Amino acid sequence: MNINGKHYRTIWPADHDNKVVQIIDQRHLPHAFIVEDLKTVDDFAVAIKDMHVRGAGLIGATAGFGMYCAAITAPDPDFADFITAAANKLKATRPTAGNLAWAVERQLAAMAKQTSIKGKREIAYQTACSIADEDADFCRLIGEHGRKLIAEISARKNGEPVNILTHCNAGWLAFVDYGSATAPIYAAHQAGIKVHVWVDETRPWLQGAKLTAWELKEEGVPHTLIADNTGGHLMQHQLVDLVIVGTDRTTRCGDVANKIGTYLKALAAKDNKVPFYVALPSSTFDWKICDGIKDIPIEQRSGREITHINGLSAENGLQTIAIAPDNTSTVNYGFDVTPARLISGLITERGIMKAAEEDILRFYPEKN
Amino acid sequence: MNINGKHYRTIWPADHDNKVVQIIDQRHLPHAFIVEDLKTVDDFAVAIKDMHVRGAGLIGATAGFGMYCAAITAPDPDFADFITAAANKLKATRPTAGNLAWAVERQLAAMAKQTSIKGKREIAYQTACSIADEDADFCRLIGEHGRKLIAEISARKNGEPVNILTHCNAGWLAFVDYGSATAPIYAAHQAGIKVHVWVDETRPWLQGAKLTAWELKEEGVPHTLIADNTGGHLMQHQLVDLVIVGTDRTTRCGDVANKIGTYLKALAAKDNKVPFYVALPSSTFDWKICDGIKDIPIEQRSGREITHINGLSAENGLQTIAIAPDNTSTVNYGFDVTPARLISGLITERGIMKAAEEDILRFYPEKN
Repeated sequence: MNINGKHYRTIWPADHDNKVVQIIDQRHLPHAFIVEDLKTVDDFAVAIKDMHVRGAGLIGATAGFGMYCAAITAPDPDFADFITAAANKLKATRPTAGNLAWAVERQLAAMAKQTSIKGKREIAYQTACSIADEDADFCRLIGEHGRKLIAEISARKNGEPVNILTHCNAGWLAFVDYGSATAPIYAAHQAGIKVHVWVDETRPWLQGAKLTAWELKEEGVPHTLIADNTGGHLMQHQLVDLVIVGTDRTTRCGDVANKIGTYLKALAAKDNKVPFYVALPSSTFDWKICDGIKDIPIEQRSGREITHINGLSAENGLQTIAIAPDNTSTVNYGFDVTPARLISGLITERGIMKAAEEDILRFYPEKN
Repeated sequence: MNINGKHYRTIWPADHDNKVVQIIDQRHLPHAFIVEDLKTVDDFAVAIKDMHVRGAGLIGATAGFGMYCAAITAPDPDFADFITAAANKLKATRPTAGNLAWAVERQLAAMAKQTSIKGKREIAYQTACSIADEDADFCRLIGEHGRKLIAEISARKNGEPVNILTHCNAGWLAFVDYGSATAPIYAAHQAGIKVHVWVDETRPWLQGAKLTAWELKEEGVPHTLIADNTGGHLMQHQLVDLVIVGTDRTTRCGDVANKIGTYLKALAAKDNKVPFYVALPSSTFDWKICDGIKDIPIEQRSGREITHINGLSAENGLQTIAIAPDNTSTVNYGFDVTPARLISGLITERGIMKAAEEDILRFYPEKN
């Protein structure tokens, strides 16, 4: 997608000879655009854990390149042990993210088929690039399928803007390109369909205020930033035509774990008969589980994300401020689970399906 | 209630001779405790509009003292015009707050019964004090009634702490003393019942993080601060036994307008069979209306409350920081309406009743 008119992905192999992968360090957005070099497995683990990169697809792609980094930096004598340790380290960074384990396992399986260390290194590079390319391609297809939903609503509204609410950032910054929840919005916008996006600010990390608002601004898509508390009121007053969110892990029965607060918006959508769609590349499916509330582990993050906020002071540059009394107790769950019964449909690279095992498996028969 | 062990109310007539009323300027909490002098009607209007004081009961009490200020500062020749202008100015500050118009009208009616200006001034003082005293007394009674609800749950939990979620600050800082939603919690805590409060931080203004957490800390009540997005997840996992919130305006049919986001918590409570109670002194009732979604005007506030946050920087003291791209569009609705069908009951100074016209009028037969 575009930043100041120039095309970027969120991660790219910058310099194979010097073993450098580059990312956009998203912690500084929207106030500064900073590209970071990742050169060691530790660099990758820190980048994922401390949210230099975040989002379902991008965590997967970063893990894929992290395993490539492991392969090219592993000393020959300890190659196998080094790779195993790197895989474990990367998988432990974000427990809820489905794509993370998926990408690491895919790399391990690809390397296992090669007999030479040279061959393992080459296949690790190819696999990392494939994971990234497929992610971008799948998101592009999600955009094509989802665009039709938006076009139908637009037709009913006689060309009035279609008001779409989204939570967190399931934008191109959360993937390699296009995004999941934003892909249909970008596709509709590029097709000349009038859209307007309600952007949940998404506390505590403020991905909506800091990332989604910035992405939409760079792409020229009309949008309005709101507190997370606002969506229910907007839906009560017919100001939302469609909700589209992403997911970090999706069960074979259609439950989705997405950013904390998604479940509340799904309840409001149901109560006000607003269609609620979840967009995802199939890498986000966890085919082994059905009941998301019971079986998806929910990451708990530092309470400092609740008690402190960072942003830009006009006088003093980037600042971290306390917004609560000293030593206030907190809990900080990163995700919640929206049960399939509240979801109108899933938008994947293969099309739009019901959030129900039977329909999901009709689109993914190889998982039967 | 207590601040550093000393008893305070949120507003008090400090110096009748010098025409000074004092308030706690809540904009500086929890970082600084500052008492402000109010000496003119404009001081009162600014204090309400710019949220030096906020909350249903305290807005009413401040409006009551504002009319007293009008009476004692009005020049004799223009007394009637001055009072009318003051009433209109005060009523225009916060359109959703039911107690505001109620307190102003009560003062106008009391003054109208007096023939002399001296008599009007004296009755204005007595009425302001009565409004404040009744508010404190009603909140104390709300505490007594609500304590029984908490005691019942505590008995079922064999003395394990009762987990109560609250949104915004309907604490003593929102009233003259005790609070509405917090009154049952304080009463239970003082009766030795184990309670633990989940405090919604309450964006955009952060009343939960800045005020409720501070109040509960000063009173020694165990609590945990959470992002507004978190309550649904907690309820899904049986970590909430009871929700108690306040209300800024309540219809005769039991719909309530409370801080934006309350409706989302009510939906989650319903979906997870968690009792959802609203605590209010009867001054919050708007007896003229039934359908809250249709008939309660919802205040829109400055978008800067969304894009900017203030708090305490360790290096630079109180700071205001931007958390969104420059010039991002926003909307900032202050309240939403929770329909009566989602409410388990109303806790008022007269007892606990269903959120339904018939039951409300059984407790308030004079409004039939």
